[in-house]
Amino acid sequence: MDALKQTKFDDKNLIPAIVQDFKTGDILMFAWMNQESLALTIEKQQAVYYSRSRKKLWFKGEQSGHTQLIKEIFTDCDNDVILLRVDQVGGIACHTGRKSCFFQQLDKNNWKTVANVLKNPKDIYE
Amino acid sequence: MDALKQTKFDDKNLIPAIVQDFKTGDILMFAWMNQESLALTIEKQQAVYYSRSRKKLWFKGEQSGHTQLIKEIFTDCDNDVILLRVDQVGGIACHTGRKSCFFQQLDKNNWKTVANVLKNPKDIYE
Repeated sequence: MDALKQTKFDDKNLIPAIVQDFKTGDILMFAWMNQESLALTIEKQQAVYYSRSRKKLWFKGEQSGHTQLIKEIFTDCDNDVILLRVDQVGGIACHTGRKSCFFQQLDKNNWKTVANVLKNPKDIYE
Repeated sequence: MDALKQTKFDDKNLIPAIVQDFKTGDILMFAWMNQESLALTIEKQQAVYYSRSRKKLWFKGEQSGHTQLIKEIFTDCDNDVILLRVDQVGGIACHTGRKSCFFQQLDKNNWKTVANVLKNPKDIYE
């Protein structure tokens, strides 16, 4: 695929992926992709990442059901970052049960939690 | 600063930073920060990154005037990604003269340029 050939992966063969809610513009999460996960994401039109901790493909939502349906895919001026604009199934992207992983806001000198848990993680990952 | 102590930098002492227009929600760019650049960003309320290619602090907008005024700073559930919500001075974040660095959209198998150059880079970097 031509687009994949033009995409630049780093020295670990990974590329950063920013994930944005296509309806609200909210940043939902940040993850990494290898070439295979990007190819699968394009093919399935559903987000597939590479888990650096588990060292394997991460089919987002496989356990939780919180899959991310691809609406648009962008890359940046250097072809070394991916932006996925997605429809977040279940409205929850974060493993904590919140909509977005970015729920801690800087308040003076501390990170303050500013978003509610929508679903108990115990009920998500049974 | 407590917030900095809780922030996790990677094996290169860097943390990814997503930069979002606080008014429109558009993703403007993606960059890296070291501890010093994050501390300066918080102190000055203006974006300062770390340039991996030039191996030094990158005071965004120093040459171009396209500084980024901080409106909100978030971190994610793992404290290892930063989200800056900014007021983009001049309305141009990208060195190509476009509003956003994410101006290439996947169209079938190719990256297609979907945003116009607002200002000739030659006129930005005189």
